[in-house]
Amino acid sequence: MNLNDTKVGIIGGGQLGKMLIQEAKKMDFYVCVLAPSINSPAAKIADEVIVGDLYDEEKISEIVKKCDVTTYEIEHINTDILCSLEEEGYRIYPSPKILKTINNKYVQKEFLRKNNLPTPEFEKISDLKYTASKFGFPFVQKACIGGYDGRGVEVIKTEKDFSNALECDSFAEKYVEFEKELAVIVSRGINGEVKVFPVVEMMFDHNKNICDRIIAPGRIEKDIVEKVQEIAIKCVELLDGVGVFAIEMFLTKGGRVLINEIAPRVHNSGHYTIEACVTSQFEQHIRAICNLPLGSTDLIIPAVMVNILGEEGKNGHPFYKGLEDIMKISGVNIHIYGKKIVKPFRKMGHITVVDKSVEKAFSKATQVNRILKAISLEGYKSEE
Amino acid sequence: MNLNDTKVGIIGGGQLGKMLIQEAKKMDFYVCVLAPSINSPAAKIADEVIVGDLYDEEKISEIVKKCDVTTYEIEHINTDILCSLEEEGYRIYPSPKILKTINNKYVQKEFLRKNNLPTPEFEKISDLKYTASKFGFPFVQKACIGGYDGRGVEVIKTEKDFSNALECDSFAEKYVEFEKELAVIVSRGINGEVKVFPVVEMMFDHNKNICDRIIAPGRIEKDIVEKVQEIAIKCVELLDGVGVFAIEMFLTKGGRVLINEIAPRVHNSGHYTIEACVTSQFEQHIRAICNLPLGSTDLIIPAVMVNILGEEGKNGHPFYKGLEDIMKISGVNIHIYGKKIVKPFRKMGHITVVDKSVEKAFSKATQVNRILKAISLEGYKSEE
Repeated sequence: MNLNDTKVGIIGGGQLGKMLIQEAKKMDFYVCVLAPSINSPAAKIADEVIVGDLYDEEKISEIVKKCDVTTYEIEHINTDILCSLEEEGYRIYPSPKILKTINNKYVQKEFLRKNNLPTPEFEKISDLKYTASKFGFPFVQKACIGGYDGRGVEVIKTEKDFSNALECDSFAEKYVEFEKELAVIVSRGINGEVKVFPVVEMMFDHNKNICDRIIAPGRIEKDIVEKVQEIAIKCVELLDGVGVFAIEMFLTKGGRVLINEIAPRVHNSGHYTIEACVTSQFEQHIRAICNLPLGSTDLIIPAVMVNILGEEGKNGHPFYKGLEDIMKISGVNIHIYGKKIVKPFRKMGHITVVDKSVEKAFSKATQVNRILKAISLEGYKSEE
Repeated sequence: MNLNDTKVGIIGGGQLGKMLIQEAKKMDFYVCVLAPSINSPAAKIADEVIVGDLYDEEKISEIVKKCDVTTYEIEHINTDILCSLEEEGYRIYPSPKILKTINNKYVQKEFLRKNNLPTPEFEKISDLKYTASKFGFPFVQKACIGGYDGRGVEVIKTEKDFSNALECDSFAEKYVEFEKELAVIVSRGINGEVKVFPVVEMMFDHNKNICDRIIAPGRIEKDIVEKVQEIAIKCVELLDGVGVFAIEMFLTKGGRVLINEIAPRVHNSGHYTIEACVTSQFEQHIRAICNLPLGSTDLIIPAVMVNILGEEGKNGHPFYKGLEDIMKISGVNIHIYGKKIVKPFRKMGHITVVDKSVEKAFSKATQVNRILKAISLEGYKSEE
């Protein structure tokens, strides 16, 4: 077997692609990426780069036809052409048909409801007043298409918020009084083999409305862990998913588990697996889509991951403040994605802190977060 | 701080360079390598490649002058030009002066003896008979210069072996009846900060006379661990070494610890650190030479590393037999270096098996070794 004779295609040039390539190169796979720029994080370390828009039919056909198997690191891509290519017999995992279910969040919710998978109550919005009368305040408005990292979501607390409401095709979700937000990575092979990673807690920076920390393992009861993993596996099996999927859930104050969102790809909530699990989510994804046996998902050490996010109102050349001080903290693993430009709340890197206990890792992560308060700028403005 | 604004140069294009780059790219360092071929393992993932001979003065000057700091992943390089460049003020770590002490094994031994560091008895060979009369049979003949992976070493068991003796500048070493062969990685910063990794056991394939397995941690008493680490640190401090060093030692049947050899670089005996330690030897080396704080060297899980070696008498396109079966064993991490050509005993990759106990990891590694019995060939011959 010669892994280098296997060409893996990745659509998307971001950090998820970069980390996929890093793991694939350990095993000497040949990796080709379709990236929007030659400076994209993934493009910088790929064996071959096709520069192009992720909706460009020709470029997508080129990468799929060139590679033995193609995957994607972002769901906002040209799904139609991928579906045609799949029908022609090209190997694309997860099946792009899944994107049709997942990319429209309302369709995703309907898929869950139809399959009796637990999710908050929801319904299409036609009239905000009517929705309010039905769901009460607060309720959550979500864009059907295009949301990402907290964008495309509005919490409508009173009638006054109607003026801030999203003006696109959207649906309302009942506001969930949650205890914690949880996430879990499920991996599934072409032959149906399934392995599930530990359940983690997601912590949010509520000012930025973006996940800023992941705690692995989540500090929850064993029966909740089992329930979460069982639901997550069911999701991926019902989707007939191949590769790695992230499922985000709410744990309600009443102890119920509700699915918030499915991502058909490696995910921010699984970055901790690089250092803390026997097999990382990235290696696992490569194994899955290449029809190789899945690796062990066991946790080997507790970890807390901290995202390095762009500061509000800042655009330009990134400067990473405090890295040297952070490196003095033992157990710290620094990942800088290599993005040329920092934008508000943009994910620029992450830091995984490992320690003997979650508590110790958490307290170190708090230290890290305090030092790495911000990404300052060296002045000059973006040309990107 | 912008790591990407730091250019790191690496002289050498092999797997050690590849793994250094993999760790450096996590943190987004810019890496330039000087490699003998564009197909060298490290060249394939570097940001910039200078193709050239590792003794080529011009090429070495080019990389050193281009980079903020330069290191090497092999000691068989042009040391003279590096020493001149260092005197001109360029940053090269470890100092190439150290290579003058280390590359001649006899000079290395004299350095140890002069500093009262324990090493087997040794002396220059001028007449084999005289040496035999002094040391008795068996004794070990070592080439002063150029030995590598078991080459340049002969065990002279009787007078009959005189005909097999090396015909170069050499010295004799008293044959050590050892209990185990041990190794340890020491890291040292520019400011003198020192961190030492766990002590490991090296196991040899005696047919091939090459290390084929590393057991971490070594199955030895705590006082031996401490003695080994203390001696190793002293070595690196006396050399005024900056970066990562590997020190190989014998543990004699009588419980003494004797230094066998020093390598002024990341080392095969430290590959297990990628999966099994908080900080890998590769990241640690980058931290050290870039004047960054050193990371924790704590072991997080026991590990056994197995080398993937070329089969005797085989040259050509490599084929990795049994990888899929090996991937079924949980805890297995596969590294394929991406060398185009397999040669007898050439290091083609390695596999690190992690598990809850050394015993479990060892038994899985034995399984791995059985499956990965050989690198077969897909027929066609080398053009390299």
